[in-house]
Amino acid sequence: MIDVQNQPDNRGIPIQQTGVSGVCLPFLIEDGGKIQPVQAHVRFTVALDENLRGTHMSRLIEILDDWREKPIAFRTLDAILRAAIEKLSTTAAYIRLDFKYFLERRAPVSGRTSLLDVDCTLVASLVDGRTAFQLGLSVPFTTLCPCSREISDCGAHNQRSVCSVLLSFGGAPTVTIDGLTKLIESQASSAIVPLLKREDEKYVTEAAYNNPKFVEDILRDVVIALRSIKGLKSFSIECENCESIHNHNAFALHDEIVG
Amino acid sequence: MIDVQNQPDNRGIPIQQTGVSGVCLPFLIEDGGKIQPVQAHVRFTVALDENLRGTHMSRLIEILDDWREKPIAFRTLDAILRAAIEKLSTTAAYIRLDFKYFLERRAPVSGRTSLLDVDCTLVASLVDGRTAFQLGLSVPFTTLCPCSREISDCGAHNQRSVCSVLLSFGGAPTVTIDGLTKLIESQASSAIVPLLKREDEKYVTEAAYNNPKFVEDILRDVVIALRSIKGLKSFSIECENCESIHNHNAFALHDEIVG
Amino acid sequence: MIDVQNQPDNRGIPIQQTGVSGVCLPFLIEDGGKIQPVQAHVRFTVALDENLRGTHMSRLIEILDDWREKPIAFRTLDAILRAAIEKLSTTAAYIRLDFKYFLERRAPVSGRTSLLDVDCTLVASLVDGRTAFQLGLSVPFTTLCPCSREISDCGAHNQRSVCSVLLSFGGAPTVTIDGLTKLIESQASSAIVPLLKREDEKYVTEAAYNNPKFVEDILRDVVIALRSIKGLKSFSIECENCESIHNHNAFALHDEIVG
Amino acid sequence: MIDVQNQPDNRGIPIQQTGVSGVCLPFLIEDGGKIQPVQAHVRFTVALDENLRGTHMSRLIEILDDWREKPIAFRTLDAILRAAIEKLSTTAAYIRLDFKYFLERRAPVSGRTSLLDVDCTLVASLVDGRTAFQLGLSVPFTTLCPCSREISDCGAHNQRSVCSVLLSFGGAPTVTIDGLTKLIESQASSAIVPLLKREDEKYVTEAAYNNPKFVEDILRDVVIALRSIKGLKSFSIECENCESIHNHNAFALHDEIVG
Repeated sequence: MIDVQNQPDNRGIPIQQTGVSGVCLPFLIEDGGKIQPVQAHVRFTVALDENLRGTHMSRLIEILDDWREKPIAFRTLDAILRAAIEKLSTTAAYIRLDFKYFLERRAPVSGRTSLLDVDCTLVASLVDGRTAFQLGLSVPFTTLCPCSREISDCGAHNQRSVCSVLLSFGGAPTVTIDGLTKLIESQASSAIVPLLKREDEKYVTEAAYNNPKFVEDILRDVVIALRSIKGLKSFSIECENCESIHNHNAFALHDEIVG
Repeated sequence: MIDVQNQPDNRGIPIQQTGVSGVCLPFLIEDGGKIQPVQAHVRFTVALDENLRGTHMSRLIEILDDWREKPIAFRTLDAILRAAIEKLSTTAAYIRLDFKYFLERRAPVSGRTSLLDVDCTLVASLVDGRTAFQLGLSVPFTTLCPCSREISDCGAHNQRSVCSVLLSFGGAPTVTIDGLTKLIESQASSAIVPLLKREDEKYVTEAAYNNPKFVEDILRDVVIALRSIKGLKSFSIECENCESIHNHNAFALHDEIVG
Repeated sequence: MIDVQNQPDNRGIPIQQTGVSGVCLPFLIEDGGKIQPVQAHVRFTVALDENLRGTHMSRLIEILDDWREKPIAFRTLDAILRAAIEKLSTTAAYIRLDFKYFLERRAPVSGRTSLLDVDCTLVASLVDGRTAFQLGLSVPFTTLCPCSREISDCGAHNQRSVCSVLLSFGGAPTVTIDGLTKLIESQASSAIVPLLKREDEKYVTEAAYNNPKFVEDILRDVVIALRSIKGLKSFSIECENCESIHNHNAFALHDEIVG
Repeated sequence: MIDVQNQPDNRGIPIQQTGVSGVCLPFLIEDGGKIQPVQAHVRFTVALDENLRGTHMSRLIEILDDWREKPIAFRTLDAILRAAIEKLSTTAAYIRLDFKYFLERRAPVSGRTSLLDVDCTLVASLVDGRTAFQLGLSVPFTTLCPCSREISDCGAHNQRSVCSVLLSFGGAPTVTIDGLTKLIESQASSAIVPLLKREDEKYVTEAAYNNPKFVEDILRDVVIALRSIKGLKSFSIECENCESIHNHNAFALHDEIVG
């Protein structure tokens, strides 16, 4: 049967990335020594030489299928990329997984535990023999407005906020999903806990009131916290407060090359 | 050219609705004597006789196109449905438009005006000569938790909430989009205003603190408010508070047949 | 500590459903004798007496937490609802889980297997001692247009389509997720298989070309297929073809009370 | 009333961007001499000096409000950014508008006209007195698979695809929304037209069959087409085919610095 993808191409344009996107698959994610089943959306691509018309996309699906029941960590992503480079006879491969990851959180007074979901992104690239990794997280928490608190006789507007970070590492990331989430949560007016009994609700309400922060405060405190991570090459941060008094958000972003 | 849609069908199944969905078009919406350009997502369907294989969907797009520059109100939807019934030789037609609608709001102290966006739905059906209408709205506002306020030494958690209502009328709706939005907003801990100066922020912060409401309180107060609307046959309400202290929502719903 | 939720309410309005929504949690789903880890979005609500101001939402989160590591099937949902009714001293409870579920599919010629993701919904209600169940599925497949094929000298437009069904049962559903998915897929121009080698691609291309179907054909054939399910009380079907030649969809729907 | 935002900050971190996001507003967009009302989602931010705690976000909303009824073109975005820099005493400002834009398209045989919606993005930045602009578009069209066509005895799988481009210019963009859309559409297997009569459906079906293209073909042809645009500094392209035979997409991307 003719292999149309393998036909020559004379437009003279090497393609940076071609492959599959929107692939939904179950995986086992390994983080900090624990293994958790997740459902990931995957983008998996390779470079294509200027002389070739198309890549063989079904091979990318086959490779993903091989890792269905083996734990995925950054070293696994490296092996997946090496398989792609070999099976598709190319020089560069890229993978991105987006999934929800669950972390156990303990209520501050009652000590009851529950599961917090964070949006997590793992990215790996292997270009000309060099691997690079990125770890992305979107962490929800509470912010309470310092201005509203200061000018009002009672109360202060507060809201659900989310801080999204993307960290770039030369080698394998030196932080866990759980550790990075805690680092970010600890910059908030108050962390979010799914299960709160009344004594816990009193605690987090007062904690947030006593720790008012603008979106700019959160951003600066996360910048300072991220700078301390070993092996970090660069990071980007986006903070968004879903203002309870508006139908739009307060927003701040910051990018930085670290080392 | 052969008309495949017009082929006979012998499965003996009359189809309740067939047509087009996800159609994105600009329209002019008329509400309370004002005309506003909107961008709507449209579902437009007709009944199909058991003896026919398919409907002629391009005619539905042609009909929508005829109304592109004429104001859309409930009486227009009735005319659109009559055109569908005639052009497609059927006995029933249905249309649903979803769009963002902008309402001018005034800040409580500074008096500055700004535009609030609400999600609006217009539905009309014409079955065996009888027209029925539905008006749907999703209105954002602020809620402040009575429990959090009562048990805490300071502050109270509050958040952005949304109340979605769907009202069914026998004839044309007796309320405007603006009027129904205001009716719902006035049941909140505080209405949302996009543009607030500092004196306004103090006002809405204190107003919400002094008017704490559970999701159940909002629901009940909206029930009472809707019951007073003339000509209403039935309504459904869904209230959702995007809790600032959780990553999930507090939720309540209620359906009622009125008259 | 004062229990504000437990305060009396004198508005005279019993609330049909109040509780939590948008709760994201991992569960184990049991279907057809197999157990699969999923990530579900949950809505979990109870009825509230007209004399009570609010429900105790943290108890609903506690109940969900109890079932985190036990397989969820319809009988489990019944037990979850009974726990809610007991812990919240009410007469009705409702739960809805939405999640992606993975099914193994075999390529038609090469025999290679891969995983297809379908969107699945489980609903259960327990009102005045009577339980009712609903099973919902959104199944993707290929449709090829009979009109386009007939009138064109070569080719025919085809596209990804999705059929969403919601089945209501008096007792526990008599179909599995896998079985119901196969029943729907077999009404398509061709089923979707994530991993196709070239010989498979030839097969599905020709299969779809030789089995052209309008959205109305799919709908009618699914109606006939669903009518044969034992114990079914009613069903609703929505079919949507993401037309390759338009930026909108062809759409059809049908509701039916069976027994 | 105390100005908490204006308090000094001693963390030593200048903030790159802070402001508002998710603002939904109606605007008038001017493109190629025509003016069209749209509903935009806006992100509007400024730089914040390391010595200041927060910015005054309500002023950003006020500025947007000033341009509600005046046509928005790239020169308007420049004026909006200058207003932000002046009113917020800063050195850099950024704005991004995302909206649906409607373009009239003519059916190839019947000549009937209808409106195609494309997703459009306008970005402008003013940093240290220098303005830069970006124009982004997501254009839907049809692709037909060359491999499927070649290996199959009849038919070929085809699908809805989308090509998203982001073009960066030093000065004001030299292309219109309409012109750039047409440039991209003309690289497809067939352009999409919302309203097609039967003779048009025959035409586009055969046109696509006679012009099969892989996602890589589309990408390369768009690369060649974009390189010819005057004044272009750089561009990025993402092409995604919503494969009719899979539940995932074929995907390719390419970035290039032009001049």
